[in-house]
Amino acid sequence: MKKQYLLTPGPTPIPPEVALKEALPILHHRTNEFAAIYKDVAESLKYVFQTKNEVFLLAGSGTGAMEMAVTNILSPGDEVIVAGCGNFGDRWIKIAETYGVKVISASAPWGNVVKPAEIEKALKANPNIKAVYTTSTETSTGVVNDIKAIGEIVAKTNAVLVVDTISGLAGQEFKMDEWKVDVTVSGSQKGLMLAPGLAFISLSEKAWKLTETSKIPKFYFDIKKYKKSYATNETPFTPPVTLIVALQESLRLIKERGIENVWNDCKLLAKAARAGMQALGLELFGEVPCEVVTSAKVPEEIGGKIVKTLREKYGVSIAGGQADLKGKIIRFAHMGYIGKADLLVGFACLEMVLVELGMKIEKGKAVAAAEEALLNG
Amino acid sequence: MKKQYLLTPGPTPIPPEVALKEALPILHHRTNEFAAIYKDVAESLKYVFQTKNEVFLLAGSGTGAMEMAVTNILSPGDEVIVAGCGNFGDRWIKIAETYGVKVISASAPWGNVVKPAEIEKALKANPNIKAVYTTSTETSTGVVNDIKAIGEIVAKTNAVLVVDTISGLAGQEFKMDEWKVDVTVSGSQKGLMLAPGLAFISLSEKAWKLTETSKIPKFYFDIKKYKKSYATNETPFTPPVTLIVALQESLRLIKERGIENVWNDCKLLAKAARAGMQALGLELFGEVPCEVVTSAKVPEEIGGKIVKTLREKYGVSIAGGQADLKGKIIRFAHMGYIGKADLLVGFACLEMVLVELGMKIEKGKAVAAAEEALLNG
Repeated sequence: MKKQYLLTPGPTPIPPEVALKEALPILHHRTNEFAAIYKDVAESLKYVFQTKNEVFLLAGSGTGAMEMAVTNILSPGDEVIVAGCGNFGDRWIKIAETYGVKVISASAPWGNVVKPAEIEKALKANPNIKAVYTTSTETSTGVVNDIKAIGEIVAKTNAVLVVDTISGLAGQEFKMDEWKVDVTVSGSQKGLMLAPGLAFISLSEKAWKLTETSKIPKFYFDIKKYKKSYATNETPFTPPVTLIVALQESLRLIKERGIENVWNDCKLLAKAARAGMQALGLELFGEVPCEVVTSAKVPEEIGGKIVKTLREKYGVSIAGGQADLKGKIIRFAHMGYIGKADLLVGFACLEMVLVELGMKIEKGKAVAAAEEALLNG
Repeated sequence: MKKQYLLTPGPTPIPPEVALKEALPILHHRTNEFAAIYKDVAESLKYVFQTKNEVFLLAGSGTGAMEMAVTNILSPGDEVIVAGCGNFGDRWIKIAETYGVKVISASAPWGNVVKPAEIEKALKANPNIKAVYTTSTETSTGVVNDIKAIGEIVAKTNAVLVVDTISGLAGQEFKMDEWKVDVTVSGSQKGLMLAPGLAFISLSEKAWKLTETSKIPKFYFDIKKYKKSYATNETPFTPPVTLIVALQESLRLIKERGIENVWNDCKLLAKAARAGMQALGLELFGEVPCEVVTSAKVPEEIGGKIVKTLREKYGVSIAGGQADLKGKIIRFAHMGYIGKADLLVGFACLEMVLVELGMKIEKGKAVAAAEEALLNG
């Protein structure tokens, strides 16, 4: 028996009242009872996405929704801009190139944020650009891009703006309509406090027009099938019923709390996480830190051991770095069902692990700094 | 409060010990703990598929795995045979044609079964055929195809045999290797007694060779990504963790019971279901009835009302007909966690509903006939 504390940026912990819904006797998906749940969920998702557009659900990982956002609006030979700044931004390039789409890069190095001016320049230099692909919060590095500024730029052109909000939705402020985002994709296992297995996609009218000319073949990910079924509160293929029933509960919790409060709570936790890292003498990583995950540099000689020791000795799961950042950074998530006390648990155990790994730090200092930030808002 | 009895061919009921696993605190998927579960599940799936090949898991509906079985082994312009006999057989045609594959039909009318001789003839007439697509149990009509006979025929050619076992796996006898099946696809929400959201695919060596020449673009459904991750007990994209944890439990139950016993239990339930239908004077539907679902014709004037009344009045969910069969047949599922007593509940309530809808039947007769079959084996 080892008690587990999950501070990873997906999956994130699931509230017990949500988890228990997954265990209820399963419903059949072609019934009025399920249709009512589906309808409620679809309406609540609009609130979380801050959009008037329909939000479609599908069985799949978030990457499935990313693929939909490529294959449904483009044709082979089309030109797009990818403005990424980490592992998940790079995924847009891989998907687009898989389907014969020409990618023009406006990406920033890992750790930096996307520069809206670079996108503007690339759009001017390439008047045929069909879409700009970017990421809201880039989990691999812990930064957040200025989607609002990018939206202003893209909205003035014929291109559509596609944003991956998989790791930040219901955590980092995001307003699809107000920020002029045309396609939003997301997943269930982060701010929505649910198990993975459900993905989401929403399209603006401008993006729907592109679906009319798109020539990339698709079947399971064909968004028109989802739109058609949506009209009768259904999905084209058997949906993950238990996850959707649980989603209704997590969305109820989010609505009850209010999406602005959800954003503000994450903001406060992020402040505390940054204070805690700095109190340990760890340099924050990332040009503009996001509010759902905090990254800090760690000494390379112990970098690989911190995550492993925390998990094995204290049951605390955090994330390390990916690809080139492996062993160089640690990442603490603070969104969804991760609360103030969880963050303090994380820092207390991190302190013990750093001491054990031979780092000269003052015990209690990170916890104190985090408490200070939490108390003073 | 209305007690629910699920006798539908997917989703099927979930055993409470499996359902509760879905509600456990979520694990992170990049840990030794999850890798051990994944490895165990992958091994158990080989037993259920009756294969030595690797079985891959993905987040998606069964249709996602069907799409994988097309896009990973074919190229646009390739010729295939589709030998279907219902709604799900037709889906192979739709997927293949979406990707520019030329389909030669060896299909049978809905209600009939696929004729192996027709496949043999089509293979001889079209020597360039790359693959033969068919269905094990066709849920929409309730028949089962002779996969073993088809396997013998296809194995003698260069073509591979692709079988959809979504509705019958762990219910209807199926032996991937012995029956010379090259690609098997399946889903979680039928005989595996789990919620929907997980799909499965397994390839023979002969099928793997085709993946080397396949030119249809794919990203999320790219089986090579799954094979690569499988080597380290991982999935390429965030997997539906809670469903996989629950799957470990349902596979444990199946192994404990023994797959032959699972098949035999379904066989007995099917016998009882057929006896019950016939005792009501309802003609069985389907040339060769399968053992996971039983279809019977119903008078058209009440056909549409039976399913609705059963559900609304007694909480008993069965299925009606699809497409042209709408209102003309009813379907009782008997697989997975549906037991003898559940079937009797279904028939008892069906008797009451038929009386209420004005049909002249003798109350208790279907139940008696089903009991007789269950007692005499």
